[in-house]
Formats: sequence, C-alpha cells, structure tokens
Amino acid sequence: LTALLAAVGWAIISLVSLNVVAFVLRSIPAFDQAYGAWLDALDVISIGVFAAEYALRLWSAVELPFLTHLPSWRARLRFALRPMQMFDLLAFVPSILARLAGAPPAVENALRLLRALKIVRYSSALQSLGRVLANERGALGGALLVMLGLLLFAATCMYLIEREAQPKVFGTIPDSLYWAVVTLATVGYGDAVPVTALGKLLTGAMILCGLAAFALPIGIIATAFGREVARRDFVVNWSLVARVPLFAGLDPAAVAQIMTLLYSRTFEAGMPIVRRGAAGDSMYFIASGEAVVEREEGEVRLGDGEFFGEMALLEGRARTHTVIASTRCRTLVLDREDFERLARRHPGIRKRVEEVAAERRSRNREEPPAA
Amino acid sequence: LTALLAAVGWAIISLVSLNVVAFVLRSIPAFDQAYGAWLDALDVISIGVFAAEYALRLWSAVELPFLTHLPSWRARLRFALRPMQMFDLLAFVPSILARLAGAPPAVENALRLLRALKIVRYSSALQSLGRVLANERGALGGALLVMLGLLLFAATCMYLIEREAQPKVFGTIPDSLYWAVVTLATVGYGDAVPVTALGKLLTGAMILCGLAAFALPIGIIATAFGREVARRDFVVNWSLVARVPLFAGLDPAAVAQIMTLLYSRTFEAGMPIVRRGAAGDSMYFIASGEAVVEREEGEVRLGDGEFFGEMALLEGRARTHTVIASTRCRTLVLDREDFERLARRHPGIRKRVEEVAAERRSRNREEPPAA
Amino acid sequence: LTALLAAVGWAIISLVSLNVVAFVLRSIPAFDQAYGAWLDALDVISIGVFAAEYALRLWSAVELPFLTHLPSWRARLRFALRPMQMFDLLAFVPSILARLAGAPPAVENALRLLRALKIVRYSSALQSLGRVLANERGALGGALLVMLGLLLFAATCMYLIEREAQPKVFGTIPDSLYWAVVTLATVGYGDAVPVTALGKLLTGAMILCGLAAFALPIGIIATAFGREVARRDFVVNWSLVARVPLFAGLDPAAVAQIMTLLYSRTFEAGMPIVRRGAAGDSMYFIASGEAVVEREEGEVRLGDGEFFGEMALLEGRARTHTVIASTRCRTLVLDREDFERLARRHPGIRKRVEEVAAERRSRNREEPPAA
Amino acid sequence: LTALLAAVGWAIISLVSLNVVAFVLRSIPAFDQAYGAWLDALDVISIGVFAAEYALRLWSAVELPFLTHLPSWRARLRFALRPMQMFDLLAFVPSILARLAGAPPAVENALRLLRALKIVRYSSALQSLGRVLANERGALGGALLVMLGLLLFAATCMYLIEREAQPKVFGTIPDSLYWAVVTLATVGYGDAVPVTALGKLLTGAMILCGLAAFALPIGIIATAFGREVARRDFVVNWSLVARVPLFAGLDPAAVAQIMTLLYSRTFEAGMPIVRRGAAGDSMYFIASGEAVVEREEGEVRLGDGEFFGEMALLEGRARTHTVIASTRCRTLVLDREDFERLARRHPGIRKRVEEVAAERRSRNREEPPAA
Repeated sequence: LTALLAAVGWAIISLVSLNVVAFVLRSIPAFDQAYGAWLDALDVISIGVFAAEYALRLWSAVELPFLTHLPSWRARLRFALRPMQMFDLLAFVPSILARLAGAPPAVENALRLLRALKIVRYSSALQSLGRVLANERGALGGALLVMLGLLLFAATCMYLIEREAQPKVFGTIPDSLYWAVVTLATVGYGDAVPVTALGKLLTGAMILCGLAAFALPIGIIATAFGREVARRDFVVNWSLVARVPLFAGLDPAAVAQIMTLLYSRTFEAGMPIVRRGAAGDSMYFIASGEAVVEREEGEVRLGDGEFFGEMALLEGRARTHTVIASTRCRTLVLDREDFERLARRHPGIRKRVEEVAAERRSRNREEPPAA
Repeated sequence: LTALLAAVGWAIISLVSLNVVAFVLRSIPAFDQAYGAWLDALDVISIGVFAAEYALRLWSAVELPFLTHLPSWRARLRFALRPMQMFDLLAFVPSILARLAGAPPAVENALRLLRALKIVRYSSALQSLGRVLANERGALGGALLVMLGLLLFAATCMYLIEREAQPKVFGTIPDSLYWAVVTLATVGYGDAVPVTALGKLLTGAMILCGLAAFALPIGIIATAFGREVARRDFVVNWSLVARVPLFAGLDPAAVAQIMTLLYSRTFEAGMPIVRRGAAGDSMYFIASGEAVVEREEGEVRLGDGEFFGEMALLEGRARTHTVIASTRCRTLVLDREDFERLARRHPGIRKRVEEVAAERRSRNREEPPAA
Repeated sequence: LTALLAAVGWAIISLVSLNVVAFVLRSIPAFDQAYGAWLDALDVISIGVFAAEYALRLWSAVELPFLTHLPSWRARLRFALRPMQMFDLLAFVPSILARLAGAPPAVENALRLLRALKIVRYSSALQSLGRVLANERGALGGALLVMLGLLLFAATCMYLIEREAQPKVFGTIPDSLYWAVVTLATVGYGDAVPVTALGKLLTGAMILCGLAAFALPIGIIATAFGREVARRDFVVNWSLVARVPLFAGLDPAAVAQIMTLLYSRTFEAGMPIVRRGAAGDSMYFIASGEAVVEREEGEVRLGDGEFFGEMALLEGRARTHTVIASTRCRTLVLDREDFERLARRHPGIRKRVEEVAAERRSRNREEPPAA
Repeated sequence: LTALLAAVGWAIISLVSLNVVAFVLRSIPAFDQAYGAWLDALDVISIGVFAAEYALRLWSAVELPFLTHLPSWRARLRFALRPMQMFDLLAFVPSILARLAGAPPAVENALRLLRALKIVRYSSALQSLGRVLANERGALGGALLVMLGLLLFAATCMYLIEREAQPKVFGTIPDSLYWAVVTLATVGYGDAVPVTALGKLLTGAMILCGLAAFALPIGIIATAFGREVARRDFVVNWSLVARVPLFAGLDPAAVAQIMTLLYSRTFEAGMPIVRRGAAGDSMYFIASGEAVVEREEGEVRLGDGEFFGEMALLEGRARTHTVIASTRCRTLVLDREDFERLARRHPGIRKRVEEVAAERRSRNREEPPAA
C-alpha cells in the first residue's frame, strides 16, 4: 500500500511539473498554435485528475483519527479548510471558473500557475523554510527596516543631486527609489546611472553601505535555515553512536569524539552500500531505513541502529558480503584511517572492537551481520 | 493602561509610515498639485502630534525612577539629551524652521525624511543591529581596509591600462575608483567597462579577488547578527525544559537532547494555539506570555513555563480543549514523532510521562491544564 | 611614553592617509595643475618622515630583546628583512628612484600607492585576515578549482553556441571567459549578452549554478574569519565570569548560562561608562583595560576582572558614582531584566548578590567599587 | 618512492594545466595559425602520456589489496569502472575518436576540456564538496523549489504587465524567465528592463524577495562546507592538546580553554618554523608531519604530537635552535601573551610549565626538543 501511495504521489508531482512546463510553453504564440489541442487535452485531464484527487481526499477525511469524533459533514468541512486542501482546490477551480466566465487567454493561462502550489504538500524543505521565516520574523523585520531606511536615504540624496541633470531618471523620489533598489541589491541594470561627480561619489558610498545592510537578511535566513536543517541530526546521531555495542561503555567525551569522525551518506532503495570484494575501508551505522546482507545462507535484514563492516575496519580486507539498501537508508560512515587515529590514542577502543569482531567471527555460522 | 500605551505606539508608527509615504509621493509634481492641500494638512497634523508627544514625554520625565533624585528642570534637560528624545525633536523642529526660513520645497520635503528616525524607538532589532556594528567595529574596520586597498589597486591598474583608450571613463583615478566600486561590489552598471584585452583580463582577476574581499563584511555582520539573535534563546529554553516536571529528574545530557527536538512558534494575542477537536500531534511549553484553556468549568490561565497538550502526545487523540494565546505567546513545540523516537531509546521518559498523565487525568475534575 | 608612541602612530597613519588622498586627486589634471606645488611639498615631507621613521626603527633594532645576542650590524640586517620593515622601505625608496630615473608622472604617481602598505603594521584585523587566508588555503583552492571549472565549461558552451551570431563578443574562448566571469560573479555589465534562444537558456542555467559555486569562497572566508574573531573572546569571558566573587561557587553549567546573558561593549579612553544619576539598569565586568570610579573621597581604579554597578542591578536605583574608562576598556554587560529572569529561576543567585551588596554597602565608607 | 609518486602527480597536474591553457588559446585564430604545430605536438604528447598513465594504472590494479581475491581480468574490469579511472579514459579517448571521425576543429577542441576532469583525483576539497552537495540534497532541492517558484511568479507577473509595452523583451514567459533569472540572481545585464511604472514597482519588490530566496542555497552550501572543513580538526586538536605532558593532568574544561587559544599554521616541507636567534614569542605543537631541530650535536626529528619552543614561552628569550619542517607540517601555535593571560588566572599551569622546562634544561646535554 505504501508503495502505491508513493507511486500516486510521484504521478501527481509529475503531472504538476508537466502543467508548469505547458504553462511556460503556452505563452509562446507559435507553440500555442501548433500544439494547442494537445495542451487543451492535458488541461482537461489535469483538471479531472486534480478534481478526483481532491474529492477522494475529502471523502476519506472522516477516517482520519483526529476527525473521527465529529459528524462526517463537519469533519469534511474542517478538513477542506486546511491550507493544503485549499491549495488543492486552487489547482482546478479557478481554471474552470475562468473558462466559464470567458477570461482572456493570458489570464486563463496565468491561473494555471496556481497548480504549482500543490508541490508544497510534497516538500518538507518548503515547510521548514516557512517555519524559519515565521520564527525569524522579528529579526527579518528589523533588517527590512534598515534596508528601507537606507533605500529612502539614498533615493532622497540622489533625487536632490541628479534631479536637474537627469529629470527623466531621477525626477521624482519613486524614480530614485527604483534606482536605489536596483543599485543597492547589486543588480545594476545600467538604465539609471549617476552622471554628476557628486552623484558618482554618493553612489560609491551607498554601494558600500548597501553591502552591509543587504548582508543582514542573507545572514539571518542562511543561519536560521542551516540550524533548522541540522536540528534533528544531532540527537539521532548521538543516540545511535551511544547505543552501538562497540562504544557502549565509553564516556560521553569519547562518544562526542567518535561523532565528529562520522559523516553521513544516504542510499536510495536498491542501491548497494558495499559490494562483495570491494575495498573495505569503512564501517556503516544505519541511522534510518533498512539494509539487506546477501549471504549464501540467505538474506539478513539490518534495521535502524544496526551496523556492519567492522571486519573491514579491523583488517582492511575486501568485503565478504554485498549489502543493499532495501529502503531509503541514511548511514553514518566511519573511515578506517579515522578509526586508526582514534585507536592509536585510545587503545581501549581497538581492544573492544577486536573482542566484538572475534565473537562475531565465531558466531558467523549461526548469526549474520558482518559485511 | 498597557493596552492604551500599545495603541498609542501603533498610532505613532502608523503616522510616521504615512508621513514617509507622503514624502515619497510629494516628489511627483502631478501628485503634489492634485493632493497638495491634503498633504499640507497631514503635515500640520503630524507636526502637532509629534510636538505634543515630545512635550508629554518631556513633562513626564521627572517620574522616571532614575531621574527622581534630580531637580525637575535638570531631570528634563538630561532626558532631552537622550538619543531617542533627540530623534523625536528632529521629527518636527526642522520642518518648522524650514517653513519659517522659506527653504525651497525640495529641501523642505527632504527634511520630512527625518521623521522616519522615530521608528528606531520601536524596533529592538534596529537596536541590536547598532550594538552588533559597535562590537564588530574592529573586524569591520579591517575588512573595510582590505576593500579600500583592493579598490585603490584595481582603480590604479585600470587607470594605467585604459586611460588612453577611454580617456572619458578611465581618465583619472577618481573615475577609475567609480568603476572599481561598481564592479567589485558586483553592481556592474555597464557605463564603464574595459575595452582593451589587458583591461578585460585585469577585470576578470579583480572580480574574483573582489568576491573574496567583499565576502568579509557580509560574513562578519551575518555571523554577529545571528549570534546576537540566538544569544538569549539558549538560556530561556534550557531553564524552561529543565524545570518542566516531566523532565525534572533527567540528567543534563538528556535535557540537551530534548532541547534539540523542540522548535519555537509564536502566537499573537487572540490566536488559538490548539483547537478542540484538532489533530493532537504535539505538546507546547510556554516560553513567554500567557495562554487560556477554555473549559466548560471556566477558563484556566497558563503562564511563563507552564505546558499543555501532553495527552495528545501520549495518546494521539484529538484535542479536548481549545487553548488561546491571551498575550503574545512564544511556545516551544515537541512533535509526537520526535517524542516517540526519544521514548523508544529512553524508556524511562515514556514511563514518566504516563505517570504524570495518569495523575493529571485523575485530578482532571478539580484541576486544569491538559488541552 | 606609551601616549607618545600612540601619538606618533596616529601621526604616521594620518600622513599615509593624506598621501593616499593626494595620490587619488593628483590624477585629475586640473587639480594637479592648481595644487601641484602643495602636493610636491607633501611628497617631500612624506619621504623625509618615512625615511626618518625607517632609520630610527633600524637604529633602535639592537635594543629588541630577541636581537641582543647578535652583533649590531647583523641585528639590523635581520630586522631590515622583516616584512613590516620592507613595507616601510617601499614607502619612500621607489619614489626617490623614480624621480632620479625620470619616470613618467603617471608611473611616479602610481608608485605612491605603495605607501598605503604601511597601514598593515597598524591593523591587527589585516593580520588575522592574512592568517585566515593561509589556513584555509586548501579549501579556498578547492573552491577556486570548482569556479574555474564552471567558468571554463560555461565559456566553452557559449563559444560553441553564440560564436556565429556574435563573432565579436563570443568569437574566442578568452572572450567567452570574460563574459563568464562577468556573468557568474553577478557583475553583469551588459556588454556581452546572449542573443540566441539556446544562449539565453544556457545563461539562465549557468547563473543558477554560479550562485552555488561562487557561494563557496564567500562561505569559507566568512566562516573562518568569524571564527578567528570569536576565538579569544570565549576564554576571556569564561575566566572572567568564573572568577567574579558573585558567581564563584556556581557550577559550570550556571556559569555557561550567565555567559550567554552577557554582551560586550567597548569604551575608548576617557569615555564615561556610567554617569552619576543615570538609570542603573545593568552591571559591568571589565574584560580588559582600566576604569576609574569618581568618588568624593577620591578616585578608585578598577582593573582587568573587576566589576561595578551591582547595586543598580539589585535595586534599580540611579547610579551613585560616575565611572570613566581610563584606557580603552572592553566590558561585559549584564542587563537588569536578564538578571531578573535568571534570579527568578535560581533563587540562590539573588541571595548571594544581596549578601555581597550588603557587605559592600557596610564597607562603603572605607572601600570603594559600587557605582 | 613516495617522492617519485608525488613528482609524477605534479607532472600530470602540470600537463593537465598546460592542456587547459592550450585549449583556451587555441580558440584564437591568430594564435592557432602561429603556434598550431606546437599545440599539435603538445596534443600528441598529452594523449600519449595520459594513455600510458591509464594503462599503467590498469595494469597494476591487480596489486590493490581489495582486488587480489579476483581473477586478474575481473580485477582490472572492476577497476576500470571506478569514476576516477573513467575520467582518466575521457582525457584521451574522445580526442582520438574525434580525429578519426574528422570532427570540426571547434568540437575537437571542446573535447580537450574533458582533460580537466583528471584534476578531480588530486583535489580532496573537490571530493568533500561533492559529499556536501550529496548530503544537503534535500535542503538544496527545497531551496531550488523556492527559487523556481519565485522565478515563475516574477516572470508571469512581468509578462502580464510589460507584454504590450515591450513585446520583444517580455512577449512570452520564457523571455520573461530570462529576465527573472538575470534580475533575481542580481546579474542585471540591462538588456531586459521594465519601462512601465507598475513593472518598475514589481521589479523592486521582486529584487527584495529574490535576495531572501537566493540567500538559501548560499547559506546551505556555505554552512555545510564550513562544517565539513572543520569536522576533523576538532578531534585532532583535542587529542593533541590532551596528551601534551604539559597539560596532561588538567581537567577537560582547562583543555578546552587552551584549545581555544591555539591557532593553526602550516609549513611546507623545507620551510623553517623557527629560526635560531629569532624572537621567541610562541610555542608549537606538531599536529601532523615532521620537523627537524638543527643542533650542533646533530639533528633531532620531532613527529606527530611532539612540541617545541616552550622555553621561549617561559622566558621570552630568542630561539636557541632552528627548526625546519621536513615534511608538510601542520602546527598549532600558542602565543606568549595568550599563555600569560591563562597563567595569570590558573597559576598551576605556569608552575607545571616551569617544572617541565627545568627538567628539560637539565637533560639538555643528553636529550633534545627545546628550540
């Protein structure tokens, strides 16, 4: 069932992408004339699919655990008012209304862009971006004030200086503001440039101030978005490392050291993580997902928190088994040379790994995980 | 009274904003002719309001605790010399003087921009920005030196190279400096471009150096401003999490883990935080502000440091009460799936939460907070 | 003596700055004709001063502790080979040589820019920037490779696509490379733009890739420079907070909490830190430098690590003494509202502060620091 | 042997660089005519060298530890499929095929750019960049979606607004998209600019939004690349400091303090780290590499983790020996003034250093390291 849902999801995303491409191409008259019929067909199909999806979601809303206590019409109404469901509605209703009302083709086409909103449902990154913007509202507002203040100041000065030399370009403050935005954001079209010496001096000074003022929103958004991305990883990694039997008895400082040595690699379902016979220069911890060890005695499944490849780490031999990601699989990797460096300084770690490996090897006929 | 003060604050901010908009529009001759009378009226009203505000602030200064020990005229003089009070003075005195002195309309209008300074009083972000710039003075000065050095070097080279090919554009070093600022800050108007092969080569090299040099102030300001924004949050969150009864007996490492799972959401006064019947997929800690639980038995107020929604976390049921922010309310949110992941690894946490929940449920007829 | 040295330093910096300004203005023919005599006089004076400074530094080199074991001529030779001393030499020798050799005026003027190198000696920020660039050499080299690769790729594609449509602009790969640098660094002069549909498509794609590639050096330099700036502060602050008697018995976690509440403010020598009678809403710790408390009984000097203003923190009263920075003074500031928040959660801190304050007050007739 | 391998590596890198330069110059007709024969010779030599290198790598692949268990033809096939080996193949095969197939000169020349791919093997920074991009795929995809959404929105609005005023420039959405990319990425050629008032207003607003949206990938890449660069340093430094005998008995908090005082400097093989007689104002810890102390009694080699210069730190005397990096040598430096500040606050550290120094001095006739 999960696979079916994922397939439907990808089909919807593809259809939305196709609609966006069609939307862009349709604005070219030659293309519209040549392929208009096909695009109309796509439009009809899309409206049908989107409407069907919307209806199905609405119909099945009563099954959602947090709506079961409501009478079904109220459950569906409440569900219809959620933002994602609204976006889904915007994907087909405006197009139908525009066609009924006989809107001009350019407007009708522009309404098709609303379909792109359906993508929001499928992108967790967009959702965390929204959260970042909401959280940093205060700081962003302050940065915006600084920028607006600088824009107004630059525009007013330039208006006073260049107004007589270039009445068409700097004749009013709104005109000057257009110059100020285009200049301070470093776009610099060149359709409004200073011609007087004083104007050029002011432009140079304002550009240098602008660099500082316009660095603020970049810094705030970049820092906050980076923090949001990193937020969950830390806990997951710490818990994972701390519970690996290999490192179980280590004190937190040693765990912290090992954590800094790990880096993360993600494998899509079906991709091999290690191949039998390949160079064995790292061990893997499964952070999330599932992997399968292919052994002659049959497959062995490794889940969340299990690890493999420690033999390679100890002995540098080639891999003895192939391990394949059976779902999307995030792993933490410990390279052999990092392990060596650690072990040289903490001899206890190497001893412990050797004990575990010896035990594994002796059990190897009965039990699995050692790629 | 607080509500009244807030209303007055917003009124002043609105009036200042209106003045800024009027200032921009007034520079358009057609608009000035059509609506000049209205704008003049706005001007008179603004000057009156700003003068009245200034006088009231000055008159009531003697009530301020740190000025009570002074004779009233000295208290008022000292108060009048504070920067914010100076900004307030600049909002109306220059306009009056300009009118009395009969300054040309463009200058009189430009003086109106000074009113925008009143906004500084109301923006804490502007104030922390000022502090950041003051603290990073040394590093910013160094970055400015690097940039000036590079500008001078680029301008001198270009002057030597292109002086003969384009005497109008690169004939003097100030002209070359204008080109250098416009180019190295990546504005690139296109009114001064190299035409010789050597000039183009140098331009390419200088642009690449400029990227590095102009990255310095961006990096300094962005990093420092981000740190300033994050500074207070850490302490607040740590104290908050550590004193939630649920987590009271946990060791600091576990508290740190939980902290990384929380994210912050802010609700304006009057906004519902959770709605009765909505999906219960997270619990909330109040970091600052106050919220009201609407129960049939009457309202319950929750303040700084209290929490609600833990039932939803445990049982995934729909919310049993609506909770509304009665003031601006910053909350920390713990999502159910993060809690699950944590609980799977630390079974003690789940057990403790269940105990608290059981106790709450049994007390539920007498005592409140469980949304 | 220190004051004399500082004055000489500032005099040299001023003279160098004056030379840079003269260098820029001299390239304007009208200015050169009008004020040439003055500029020549400045030149002669500058050469004299710089040569005298150089000679004095060289002559006194034998006094430097690490050169005392050498015979004096070897000590001076070794000293002359240090980079700063070389820069000092470049400030006057090339100008003398150019005049003797009869170089053209433009070249002679350009050589004057070398005098700006003298500034390096006085800017610690420039020196840490140099260290950052040296340390991040590897990462910056990698970023440069990525950028060069992208530039070559974009230029080659554009050369293949637009070569026939615009043989003057994209006729050779060096021409295309000029376009690529100007475009990918987002300068965008507009003197080389794509005209074919394919060229425009490629330009759009390359700009998006360029954003990512050109973010690398910005990120590396900004991060590393920010870290360099922050490096020393942490230790200083920690040691300072940990040894304040007020916080002496606190455990490290509490010290860390207090540290996050502090922010840094720097006062130049002679600036008042707090004024008698001003609002007392924060206390100060001296991180480095010296401050003087002005009391009727005479001045009291506070040095590195001492603190004042705790009365204001406890009681919110106006300041009872003025405190003036007697040298450049970096302070850490604890605001009253932050202290309140902390004290509400850790009642022990408030109690301890009250004890210290009570003790200070009782000693107040004999001993000082309580502004 | 290692020296020979390094020399071969540098020879290959030089040959690749030479090929890239030749590739660029060859596109200039005049240059191609004048030096075509030399370039053809370089081409033949390069193809020969690259083919030989490829064959040698393939032939010796059977010696690699992780391939020894395979029959030799399978070992070589598996080796040939590794990405680096593929890049090596692309360096000469396409050129040969193009010559055989008689491709036009411009295409044949373009294929030579593929040789630049050989550089990837030699740049660890490129490899970590690749890892960063792979890890941050999710976040970068989200940022790309935001940017594409904004581009589509801006282009559609502009198409609706300016379509009639400038049918050539904004007549279709693809044309508008070109404007949107060039504007929002702040390139701003100036070949497509708004002319209507509404268009200018929209452009200003879109530029401000674009700043925020285009800050996202910069922030993600910069943060992640900076983290990747810093990842390993922390562990290395911590282990190094903790095992220096000087600091051996210190608690972790003190070690952390000392770490923040250290900064890193790298010396190429053969460079002197300290010179006999130079000012002794810092001590050095060798993080990686090897250094040689030149003493009259003979050389002493210092490796990974050893340190020198502590006498200078204690006594501020001139260096008594010259120390030269015998391999590339990364050192951590502790400046005297930082040490002083630390020692003033932790008197135990100074005492311990003095003990070690006294012991070293007494052993100085038998044992070495004290520069």
